[in-house]
Amino acid sequence: MTDNDVDVLVAALPPGVVAVDPDVVEPYRWDWSHDVSAGTPLAVVRAEHAEHVQTAVRWAARHGVPVVPRGAGSGLSGGSSAVDGGIVISMERMRAIEIDTECRVAVVEPGALNIEVKHAAGEHGLWYPPDPSSYEICSIGGNVATNAGGLCCVKYGVTTDYVLGLDVVLADGTLVTLGGKRIKDVAGLSLLKLFVGSEGTLGIVTRAILRLVPAQALRSTLVASFGSVRAAADAVVEIGRTLRPSMMELMDRTSINAVEDFKPMGLDRTTEALLVAQSDAPGAARAEEIEVMRLACEAHGAEVFVTDDPDEGEMFVAARRMAFNAIEARGSLLLEDVGAPIPLLPDLLVAIAAIATEHDVEIPVVAHAGDGNTHPIIVYTPESEQRARLAFDEVMRAAIAIGGTITGEHGVGRAKAHALPDQLGPDVMELNRRVKAALDPRGLLNPGALGL
Amino acid sequence: MTDNDVDVLVAALPPGVVAVDPDVVEPYRWDWSHDVSAGTPLAVVRAEHAEHVQTAVRWAARHGVPVVPRGAGSGLSGGSSAVDGGIVISMERMRAIEIDTECRVAVVEPGALNIEVKHAAGEHGLWYPPDPSSYEICSIGGNVATNAGGLCCVKYGVTTDYVLGLDVVLADGTLVTLGGKRIKDVAGLSLLKLFVGSEGTLGIVTRAILRLVPAQALRSTLVASFGSVRAAADAVVEIGRTLRPSMMELMDRTSINAVEDFKPMGLDRTTEALLVAQSDAPGAARAEEIEVMRLACEAHGAEVFVTDDPDEGEMFVAARRMAFNAIEARGSLLLEDVGAPIPLLPDLLVAIAAIATEHDVEIPVVAHAGDGNTHPIIVYTPESEQRARLAFDEVMRAAIAIGGTITGEHGVGRAKAHALPDQLGPDVMELNRRVKAALDPRGLLNPGALGL
Repeated sequence: MTDNDVDVLVAALPPGVVAVDPDVVEPYRWDWSHDVSAGTPLAVVRAEHAEHVQTAVRWAARHGVPVVPRGAGSGLSGGSSAVDGGIVISMERMRAIEIDTECRVAVVEPGALNIEVKHAAGEHGLWYPPDPSSYEICSIGGNVATNAGGLCCVKYGVTTDYVLGLDVVLADGTLVTLGGKRIKDVAGLSLLKLFVGSEGTLGIVTRAILRLVPAQALRSTLVASFGSVRAAADAVVEIGRTLRPSMMELMDRTSINAVEDFKPMGLDRTTEALLVAQSDAPGAARAEEIEVMRLACEAHGAEVFVTDDPDEGEMFVAARRMAFNAIEARGSLLLEDVGAPIPLLPDLLVAIAAIATEHDVEIPVVAHAGDGNTHPIIVYTPESEQRARLAFDEVMRAAIAIGGTITGEHGVGRAKAHALPDQLGPDVMELNRRVKAALDPRGLLNPGALGL
Repeated sequence: MTDNDVDVLVAALPPGVVAVDPDVVEPYRWDWSHDVSAGTPLAVVRAEHAEHVQTAVRWAARHGVPVVPRGAGSGLSGGSSAVDGGIVISMERMRAIEIDTECRVAVVEPGALNIEVKHAAGEHGLWYPPDPSSYEICSIGGNVATNAGGLCCVKYGVTTDYVLGLDVVLADGTLVTLGGKRIKDVAGLSLLKLFVGSEGTLGIVTRAILRLVPAQALRSTLVASFGSVRAAADAVVEIGRTLRPSMMELMDRTSINAVEDFKPMGLDRTTEALLVAQSDAPGAARAEEIEVMRLACEAHGAEVFVTDDPDEGEMFVAARRMAFNAIEARGSLLLEDVGAPIPLLPDLLVAIAAIATEHDVEIPVVAHAGDGNTHPIIVYTPESEQRARLAFDEVMRAAIAIGGTITGEHGVGRAKAHALPDQLGPDVMELNRRVKAALDPRGLLNPGALGL
């Protein structure tokens, strides 16, 4: 690779598309996980069309240069950390959104933000459900790459459930179209589903066709304060037996206090665990669902507050969504995303608390409790960094030990790649490698992510 | 391959597991599509445990013998047609079902019937939604292999949406476990989703962990008689704009009359198209949804009948489910499963009628109309067989031409393999072949299915 070779790439694309200036390149090295091992790319390609992506990938293939695709850079697992000597292909300029109201789909470029898709759909009385906490700043391309979840997944499912079609640029620069504007399609292997969640290791998504559904009905919100995290988790398990609430989020005392420190929201700092749940059942069924949840929470000793006012409800949800930013204000973070079978959620939370004590680190927890998916967030200083890293691995081991997962929705990226074999075992890791080799034999697409 | 080699297989498994007697083997040659090109296998392995599957696959790998996995044999695309010189591995004896009420999952062996899983879940107030019309006779293994749909998919999704975990025997006999009893899991490539719908070409499923949901609420049923298929399809499109009914099925005049000839159900033989729709919305919302549907149907000229009586409603649904058997009584069949983007459903149905006229063959149509998925069923006699086969291909071409699919839920199998490249194009076909080669390099698993 010579400067000359990079000049060829610069010249092959319109002015301003390829950046090589170190000051411009610098912010493209990291995602929100601030991966300390992030490399320095040769160039950043800010693609404006799928053809730009193809041109850049073909150039990279010709020169054996690694390619890291990047959405909004809001990833939490280092899945878009740059690689030394590679290029970054940023999708920030590809953000067209077209709503097809007849087919009830959104045709979206990968740089479009999740919130922008929601708004565009909403203008036509339609709804794109997946809602990562970061939905105001995360891109659809990143959502597809990680098979992102969110708060409403407990009732409405995750990103893969809404992806009907994808355009993907493969490792040799070929663009393929998978799926389309049809709801059911089993023609051929489920390659569409294989690309969702593949974190840019198999191809680069340049367009997605997303299923939309009728607008969400009115929501009522229940906020329950528990005497212990275990009691809250037990209530979650019980509620799920008969109901599918449209939200069931948990915050522990440390995360509540982090939010109150960051921006006072009127949360009770003394409560051990807060459950924020919603029902969007139609008509009178909404009040009935809320009542079932209220009784379950009270049976586990909670004080319960209920509101039908959407703005008041949204305030509590906003407090929950703010947790990450609030905790980030306390120090450096290691972000977990461990999940458990739902009835083992209480055990997982107890195990996490024990790990925090053992390693003397603060681990506030927020959770998509209804799905058994938790976000323990390990806060550290330079002094406690080593203990924090030990705790980070132990939390993943605790999840695996109870039949859970090291990542429910953030992706493996580079941050958790070392722990993936512990969960999958050698045979499934080998299957991952064989599929990767079949689609990207030279290993140029997002090398290191998923440990592939 | 010598008789001696087969004797080794017989001896390697318990008595009665391997059948070689031609009379015993004969019924294992076909599925319900009665594929005339079905071969004659060397032996049928009626596995009782995953280890039996592994033993048989290892033996086959050693001798380069093709392996056709088989569930209940109710497939409609020749996906389990036997192959000359191969073996069939039947799952009919592997039908254990364990309900984990805490995790709300069913752990199921592949030979268990869909209805058996529904019943087992129902005993605990839980529900396994996917419901192919053949749910009383089709197996979970086959459902997973084809990513089967059904009547409630319009609201509740298809098989892949409920598969949380799979045990799979790979082409070399290795057994891998994918996923588990957790709702959200993005650790590694989405291999779980890749195996669902792979029609036995990548591995053989020996266990599935299926997500269960709380029992379905009461349903009300709407039956609407339309003056034309187009009017009915237009009503379906309109209803879907604001509602997600729990069922939206269509029968045309020919299929109505076939059912009445087969078993009189009191359907109006003069109606051009019948829509059978249901709502399972909670409480008063059910009547509201039915009312919205009634108005939409009446706006398209329909006469509407509504019942809240579950038994009466089930009678109409049973009539719809009976269509396949009823039409089968009229002659030999070629079974289509074409789908279209929902607003193009009327166009697809009109195109099918034109193809029937052009080739002078009867093509009754039933449809999961709410998903845009239709089942034109081409009836033929020896005299009209050639015209029927031309019509069969033309229907698939018509679906592809409007951005639809050749199969929405039955699978490609062998019957539609020749049409798959027309839908997918050469690049995506090549991707299918690369993934197949990565997992089954010698092409021994269900060769010919999916054209792989």
